Amino acid sequence: MLIVMNAHASREEVETVLAHVREHDHTPTELPGKERIAIGVFGENPPSLRDFVVGLPGVVDAIPVSKPYKHVSTEWHEGRTVVEVRGVRIGGEELVVAAGPCAVESGEQLSATARAVAGAGAVLLRGGAYKPRTSPYSFRGLGAQGLELLARAREETGLPVVTEVLTPADVDIVAEHADMLQVGTRNAQNFALLEAVGQSGKPVLLKRGLSNTIEEWLLSAEYVVAQGNRNVVLCERGIRSFEPAMRNTLDLAAVALVRTLSHLPVMVDPSHATGIRALVLPMTLAALAAGADGVIIEVHPDPDEALSDGPQSLTPAMFTELMAEVLRLAPALGRTVARPAVAAG
Amino acid sequence: MLIVMNAHASREEVETVLAHVREHDHTPTELPGKERIAIGVFGENPPSLRDFVVGLPGVVDAIPVSKPYKHVSTEWHEGRTVVEVRGVRIGGEELVVAAGPCAVESGEQLSATARAVAGAGAVLLRGGAYKPRTSPYSFRGLGAQGLELLARAREETGLPVVTEVLTPADVDIVAEHADMLQVGTRNAQNFALLEAVGQSGKPVLLKRGLSNTIEEWLLSAEYVVAQGNRNVVLCERGIRSFEPAMRNTLDLAAVALVRTLSHLPVMVDPSHATGIRALVLPMTLAALAAGADGVIIEVHPDPDEALSDGPQSLTPAMFTELMAEVLRLAPALGRTVARPAVAAG
Amino acid sequence: MLIVMNAHASREEVETVLAHVREHDHTPTELPGKERIAIGVFGENPPSLRDFVVGLPGVVDAIPVSKPYKHVSTEWHEGRTVVEVRGVRIGGEELVVAAGPCAVESGEQLSATARAVAGAGAVLLRGGAYKPRTSPYSFRGLGAQGLELLARAREETGLPVVTEVLTPADVDIVAEHADMLQVGTRNAQNFALLEAVGQSGKPVLLKRGLSNTIEEWLLSAEYVVAQGNRNVVLCERGIRSFEPAMRNTLDLAAVALVRTLSHLPVMVDPSHATGIRALVLPMTLAALAAGADGVIIEVHPDPDEALSDGPQSLTPAMFTELMAEVLRLAPALGRTVARPAVAAG
Amino acid sequence: MLIVMNAHASREEVETVLAHVREHDHTPTELPGKERIAIGVFGENPPSLRDFVVGLPGVVDAIPVSKPYKHVSTEWHEGRTVVEVRGVRIGGEELVVAAGPCAVESGEQLSATARAVAGAGAVLLRGGAYKPRTSPYSFRGLGAQGLELLARAREETGLPVVTEVLTPADVDIVAEHADMLQVGTRNAQNFALLEAVGQSGKPVLLKRGLSNTIEEWLLSAEYVVAQGNRNVVLCERGIRSFEPAMRNTLDLAAVALVRTLSHLPVMVDPSHATGIRALVLPMTLAALAAGADGVIIEVHPDPDEALSDGPQSLTPAMFTELMAEVLRLAPALGRTVARPAVAAG
Repeated sequence: MLIVMNAHASREEVETVLAHVREHDHTPTELPGKERIAIGVFGENPPSLRDFVVGLPGVVDAIPVSKPYKHVSTEWHEGRTVVEVRGVRIGGEELVVAAGPCAVESGEQLSATARAVAGAGAVLLRGGAYKPRTSPYSFRGLGAQGLELLARAREETGLPVVTEVLTPADVDIVAEHADMLQVGTRNAQNFALLEAVGQSGKPVLLKRGLSNTIEEWLLSAEYVVAQGNRNVVLCERGIRSFEPAMRNTLDLAAVALVRTLSHLPVMVDPSHATGIRALVLPMTLAALAAGADGVIIEVHPDPDEALSDGPQSLTPAMFTELMAEVLRLAPALGRTVARPAVAAG
Repeated sequence: MLIVMNAHASREEVETVLAHVREHDHTPTELPGKERIAIGVFGENPPSLRDFVVGLPGVVDAIPVSKPYKHVSTEWHEGRTVVEVRGVRIGGEELVVAAGPCAVESGEQLSATARAVAGAGAVLLRGGAYKPRTSPYSFRGLGAQGLELLARAREETGLPVVTEVLTPADVDIVAEHADMLQVGTRNAQNFALLEAVGQSGKPVLLKRGLSNTIEEWLLSAEYVVAQGNRNVVLCERGIRSFEPAMRNTLDLAAVALVRTLSHLPVMVDPSHATGIRALVLPMTLAALAAGADGVIIEVHPDPDEALSDGPQSLTPAMFTELMAEVLRLAPALGRTVARPAVAAG
Repeated sequence: MLIVMNAHASREEVETVLAHVREHDHTPTELPGKERIAIGVFGENPPSLRDFVVGLPGVVDAIPVSKPYKHVSTEWHEGRTVVEVRGVRIGGEELVVAAGPCAVESGEQLSATARAVAGAGAVLLRGGAYKPRTSPYSFRGLGAQGLELLARAREETGLPVVTEVLTPADVDIVAEHADMLQVGTRNAQNFALLEAVGQSGKPVLLKRGLSNTIEEWLLSAEYVVAQGNRNVVLCERGIRSFEPAMRNTLDLAAVALVRTLSHLPVMVDPSHATGIRALVLPMTLAALAAGADGVIIEVHPDPDEALSDGPQSLTPAMFTELMAEVLRLAPALGRTVARPAVAAG
Repeated sequence: MLIVMNAHASREEVETVLAHVREHDHTPTELPGKERIAIGVFGENPPSLRDFVVGLPGVVDAIPVSKPYKHVSTEWHEGRTVVEVRGVRIGGEELVVAAGPCAVESGEQLSATARAVAGAGAVLLRGGAYKPRTSPYSFRGLGAQGLELLARAREETGLPVVTEVLTPADVDIVAEHADMLQVGTRNAQNFALLEAVGQSGKPVLLKRGLSNTIEEWLLSAEYVVAQGNRNVVLCERGIRSFEPAMRNTLDLAAVALVRTLSHLPVMVDPSHATGIRALVLPMTLAALAAGADGVIIEVHPDPDEALSDGPQSLTPAMFTELMAEVLRLAPALGRTVARPAVAAG
């Protein structure tokens, strides 16, 4: 940490800061300059040290130097993490495409979608049983019954299932039925939930919070990994900006940057990011070109009747076209596309 | 809802939309214009109707007309709500000042702070027993022990207690000890938690989510009220913007606007909003001038040793000065300042 | 500046950075720590030094320590600046209220408004002759004719005139007619214009750019002052955030913060900030409570016929009420309200 | 436009609005609903009509239906625009790569860079002679001398030149030396400049403003085209968000969306968008996959000595690698890569 003193700080103020740092068991180094004095504190600086000094008289600022995350950082961990979800490897050479409806609405709807996406080449089935909705008056999912339907669709198609869990009390039942637990954007800093999914040991798909910085996102991942569960896949799904034309602002440069900061795999959700069907294909290609390890796509057999997120859902035919484009793109990126482990029923 | 067709939409496309609206049991009205056709759908439009039509061929957009919240809206409810917290009335003529440490750290720290703020004129005691922290390595509160200390401080000072609850499983124990349950910014769209605090029947202090629009904030309040619990106080605590100089961007115009949209009381947290001690006093005055019903202030007996949020905590002396300024300001705003029901011990 | 090396940076990488700093005529200090080495460079660091080192191998970041502005900073200048506009002093004890129409539309409209606001107690007349409009199809002002009308209104009422200048070529003609030159939010980083108004020697009202940080805003002021013109009044007018309910997000904490960083006076424009007539009064009071030296208010004799910004313009009656509230508030803030130097005609 | 009345609006309030609309020569249609009345106004609604009604008693909102831009819209113009810059066609089948230094620093620096990028396959030379800088103390370009050097580099390499113009007074001299005029992000709403470059008739590279919505960006393009100059290339270069890890947030979905809203070509500037050298290659590939017609890349022979933007500049070797990747990607996107019209000297 670098503690920056005011240009006119008195000697007494400097001494108070030095004493304060020592009281907290750190070693300060005085760094005199032309304009002002700065004080370096190096070592394992707890972020709280900043809080202890930044309000002292004569202190202009205290600038942390180390990143606050460790387990998820490339600086402290060699090699890249590959997360395995019932045989599907995320983070290796192969690009992974997950697909399915926004919400599980019925056995027929889910089964039709699951068979369609499996047939087109998806290797993971997505679908929400518990839906977080901004309004209490919107459709909020089938709950436990939705989980049963997902498990049945997995049997039918062989596709492992990723689904969202909303609250710690539901982690057990979701973990029983699903192969990967999704933590959604609104829960990205629900720390009790992060610890609960960490303890479950299941692979976790961790969406970036709507207004979370990359550092906060990685710290949320750190919460999961700190429970001994390294099976975390980060998922960029758009952040909130001033732009009203799209549902969110997809931050693809974050994907490229996170791959330099962390060894965890990264996927992208172009459906929620844009909220516009016509943008899902170009943003899928852009995400993979930016370095994403996979994408997660909303598909619905009849999008205009979908109980949620119809406007951004692809038809099965559009999804088939998307898979064709992904297959065409992959070699130009030096990658291959993961194929289903088990043929669709 | 107004469905806007493309300027070149075919008659067939228009007919498809009209049929679609009727299938969903709504009555469309065709509105021909010079440039394009629009289709009005009036009545109780479920937000999902938008989803059903916005992806149809020839549709440019579907614009909702009604606000999605009801219970919390001034349009559907006459008069203003006053929330009573163990005798302290929030939302009436009187301005309410809540104060206390960011986190409960020890019996001594809490007791000293509680007595100081009660002595200076605060009427509610704040203090965190369960702390949400961005990093898993930060101090996260004393938990149940912190609740005990808060209850003891209430006995000592007579001040009702407001404290944060992080997860539905903790609602019972927090409701047992505290007089008002705070839902923090990171949980503003933790819908399971909103429903749990709604069911508790306790007064709720609902902070605005870091990147929540005013409409989303009111919908979160609607979640609580929809459980039959109208005792909700909204709390503006700064939103996330591009500006790095302060912790958050305090949106005081939102306070004035929310007072026209909703009958619920509104408080402001200038400590978290700015993160800078020197700004707490001016922003307290500004908040009250903007129409807030009260403020919630962080005070610590020794801020530079605080385990969290030291840089934004006031000393007891600074808080005493703040109370003096509030007392001086109130008459100019046509308001009075709530006085403690019970004298400090 | 503090140059932070990677935890695993080689000795050779460190030496390269040290040599590089010396080549640029700075003196590096090596600061060894437990986890990593950092390199301090103190003195007058040109911001460009950061650019020279941040791309070198092994460098994680280079963190500037000094603020990049000097002339406008409280750190380098004692006392507060008072800007005098034809006898009206901004930045002293007195609160200053400027008012007038968004755009000058006609002699009758301007004269009626000017007389009304002068009668109610405004001490500066605002009004746009050159209007920046997002769409080329909106009304863009009367230009030179508008300037004539403003000068005539000044004669009529005695109120000094503040009006916007859009481009360097217009600075001379605007300076001839007006008493204070306004640089609008879209031109806040139009550096050619900033230098031109600096050279004019006239008082400048410098609005904050729609997405400018406080540091960028102060650097824009530095552009003007660097031309030898210290008569700069900063004006907060709302920043762009994700919130769609209001035209902009008024950042009143920035007002309080800027008063600690800079000796320049600060005014607030609650009309443009909110875009909603009903919010102008509460945000005026909040701005003054936050420490603003004055406000600038849009008033129109018939807002629903205004050629621009009608929805946020006050009627003369509403403005009279606003002045009454300002007079009532000022003593509680320890301030007085500036009175017109010359009685209205 | 749809005028939405309050649920409790009186008949008199409705009649006032109807009369008001008719006075402005529009035809209102009353749309009675279950909850409230709405009033449709269809035809060529001037945006100002909204202003005229939104402040009337009983009016909740007035929602515009038409897009405010015409010339640049796909709705009113068939086919796609191809902008030709001295033989280089932007917006057709071929992907266009522009490259060069951030700032022209000297004849040697520019010549070395120009020859390197021409040799590697760039077809346009970029380089700033007039540099907008946040701080008045940063290097601000060589001005007219820089233009001469750019013209000389064009002779040497055959590459057409794109360079920024900062103020209307400079448009003539820049247009004399350069083949394409760049309007930078800070001037995206400098309307005097937009009209001046429009009148020049030269091809224009129009960067998106730092916090401009897509609609505002297209309206800025409309300013240029309304002068009779259709040779506008839009350039996405990152918007401002809350994320501090990168210089800006590159909004690639905006590229895909703009291609559906407008017939104008779109390029992307990944260098300014990210500010980080290592992200330029992945974001170049992502931009092209998203549908961009080309990219503009900063290259410097010795980035660590660059007078501006060194940290984001590529070395010539890195640029050669980038071109190889672009050539590899193009066929997978169904496109080809533009080749230099004239061989490098």
